[in-house]
Amino acid sequence: MRTQVAIIGGGPSGLLLSHLLHLNGIDTVVLERKTKAYVLGRIRAGVLETGFVDLLREAKVSKRLDEEGFVHNGAVIAYGNSEFGIDFKELTGRHVVVYGQTEVTRDLYEARENTDGHLVFEAENVAIHGADTDAPFVTYQIAGTEKRLDCEFVAGCDGFHGVSRQTIPGSIRNEYEKIYPFGWLGVLSETPPVHEELIYSGSERGFALCSMRNSNLSRYYIQCSLKDSAAKWSDQAFWKELKRRIPEAYRDKLVTGPSIEKSIAPLRSFVTEPMRWGRLFLCGDAAHIVPPTGAKGLNTAASDVHYLLNGLVQHYHDKDPSGLDRYSETALARVWKAERFSWATTTLLHRFPDQTEFDIKMQQADVEFLRESLSAQKVFAENYVGLPY
Amino acid sequence: MRTQVAIIGGGPSGLLLSHLLHLNGIDTVVLERKTKAYVLGRIRAGVLETGFVDLLREAKVSKRLDEEGFVHNGAVIAYGNSEFGIDFKELTGRHVVVYGQTEVTRDLYEARENTDGHLVFEAENVAIHGADTDAPFVTYQIAGTEKRLDCEFVAGCDGFHGVSRQTIPGSIRNEYEKIYPFGWLGVLSETPPVHEELIYSGSERGFALCSMRNSNLSRYYIQCSLKDSAAKWSDQAFWKELKRRIPEAYRDKLVTGPSIEKSIAPLRSFVTEPMRWGRLFLCGDAAHIVPPTGAKGLNTAASDVHYLLNGLVQHYHDKDPSGLDRYSETALARVWKAERFSWATTTLLHRFPDQTEFDIKMQQADVEFLRESLSAQKVFAENYVGLPY
Repeated sequence: MRTQVAIIGGGPSGLLLSHLLHLNGIDTVVLERKTKAYVLGRIRAGVLETGFVDLLREAKVSKRLDEEGFVHNGAVIAYGNSEFGIDFKELTGRHVVVYGQTEVTRDLYEARENTDGHLVFEAENVAIHGADTDAPFVTYQIAGTEKRLDCEFVAGCDGFHGVSRQTIPGSIRNEYEKIYPFGWLGVLSETPPVHEELIYSGSERGFALCSMRNSNLSRYYIQCSLKDSAAKWSDQAFWKELKRRIPEAYRDKLVTGPSIEKSIAPLRSFVTEPMRWGRLFLCGDAAHIVPPTGAKGLNTAASDVHYLLNGLVQHYHDKDPSGLDRYSETALARVWKAERFSWATTTLLHRFPDQTEFDIKMQQADVEFLRESLSAQKVFAENYVGLPY
Repeated sequence: MRTQVAIIGGGPSGLLLSHLLHLNGIDTVVLERKTKAYVLGRIRAGVLETGFVDLLREAKVSKRLDEEGFVHNGAVIAYGNSEFGIDFKELTGRHVVVYGQTEVTRDLYEARENTDGHLVFEAENVAIHGADTDAPFVTYQIAGTEKRLDCEFVAGCDGFHGVSRQTIPGSIRNEYEKIYPFGWLGVLSETPPVHEELIYSGSERGFALCSMRNSNLSRYYIQCSLKDSAAKWSDQAFWKELKRRIPEAYRDKLVTGPSIEKSIAPLRSFVTEPMRWGRLFLCGDAAHIVPPTGAKGLNTAASDVHYLLNGLVQHYHDKDPSGLDRYSETALARVWKAERFSWATTTLLHRFPDQTEFDIKMQQADVEFLRESLSAQKVFAENYVGLPY
């Protein structure tokens, strides 16, 4: 089998890249290790930057998003029992859209299937060969049978644990990592959200986030110990702890109900440099991870897709290699800004085990400054709605 | 002896408070442990916020400052070999004035002496009594002879090592402190400054600051180990190291010469709460210390003087205790913002022994973001020229 661009990974980055390349007349095959049902069963982020929404429009997959997505013109920052709003619209003229990653992925599958996109599921033991030659190829197994996909480029959209990054020799890779000393315990429940905007809440007992997927589907998180297990947190204990970490004004309004999903995710900052090796290009989680505070993970994957799409289109349409040659540098410049914002917002609102009393005072002063300074709010808002591509 | 306000400490805070109270018809006595020559021999900061300059104008001691001070409409941030300017004037409509603390102090002594201000030098073993009663008094010794000063209020302007803060019982004081794992080696030299604006420079070898007092008096600093001694740093070694920490563009322009002062200062963040105990009010370094990055030390002392002056004037003129009652809260709100800025700017540009490679990448991303974001520059500029009183 032969294609122009072999895409490893059938999550939203791989599907979006595949569909955008298709719309530009460039042929792809997407290799996904799991089943479609498995991919669609993953609960992930739900806050989309304007730039990402524009990219979905460019891909002509925004119909349902435009109908069902919730425009958020601001967010609430809480600290202890006090709170204030940050008005994205007023400060930047832009907004974010709340629309679950699962829904984005579903829409992209539909678009790919409607245009005879070549998606291979349950592709096991994927290996990338000759990425540093002019004739790369990918091998994999389907139900034990060895397959080979010849291609001109490989896009590694297979996440943090995927094979793509590992294909780049260790001597070339520079990896930067911070493991946070806590996780997020997340609960999905079929209850109306406590507030029409997201609430990012710092408290003496740790961080909490009130977020949502739609008018009757809420997603709540609390900072937890990495030693915790989700199974040991009863729904009752979760709701009780959540209420203790949000301002009083929201406690009585919080509608609780049975969790339909409950899990703990560790928090990590990670970047590998470079994001290109020969004809292999890394996109999204394959190259970088952010802690979820600030909702930059999926959005940063989308900006990688944007840069790689442009590079490939330039290459195929204009025979101009400059976009691909600059891909790693261009993508990383924006990645590091997203890493900075995610790290700073995590630091602003979480409790850390090694925080001194002075550190906590600096955190309080940081929040107070954000409350009082419109300039500081503008910096936050510009990052939250997404820095320009 | 009796006065209305006993002022402990004859540095710029104590002198400014004394003179402003005098102009408002309120009587003070200033007790200074050292001689006037000693106080004037201390080399200190030299960047004055607009608010502080306004306060000096209000005190009618700004004649020489207005003639000899240098208006700085911006500063340079360097990192490695690259640099960019932050335009305070453009971003905030305000500026800072470069005029040495020694000169401020000299002008204040002159003003106090011209108005028969009561200054007591070489007052030893100062002790504050009855601060929590209606009849406080201060005892001290002059050449071994015991003296007593009765008063209505005590202003503790005697610095970090002074007696004032220690007078507040430990059970009432909450102290917050961060000791930085490095110091600043400073050199004063009779050479023209390398640049018309200050240069704050981060580098792989550590921080450097190029500052000035006037057109032929430069003040340079480099981050150094706390184990270093100034005596072990030859002038030649200092200049060589400084050049390695500033962008190439400045290296050849740097005019070197013999140091006329060379010393190492540790870097500390410190705040004590509350800043009032009964009739004792702490001002400036007696209550808080900032690391010098960002030039907030003297300026924050000045805002304390402003709040205490207003409180005392309200008390004496209007019999309104509210300004004094709110003094600690009001002063501390601004103090913590200055602490935040000083800590953040120190963190932005220094090398820390425990920095991971990820931490250094975050520092670089912070600097890059500041370079590219006018909103982030505005936040920096607003803090640098001084938040409103």
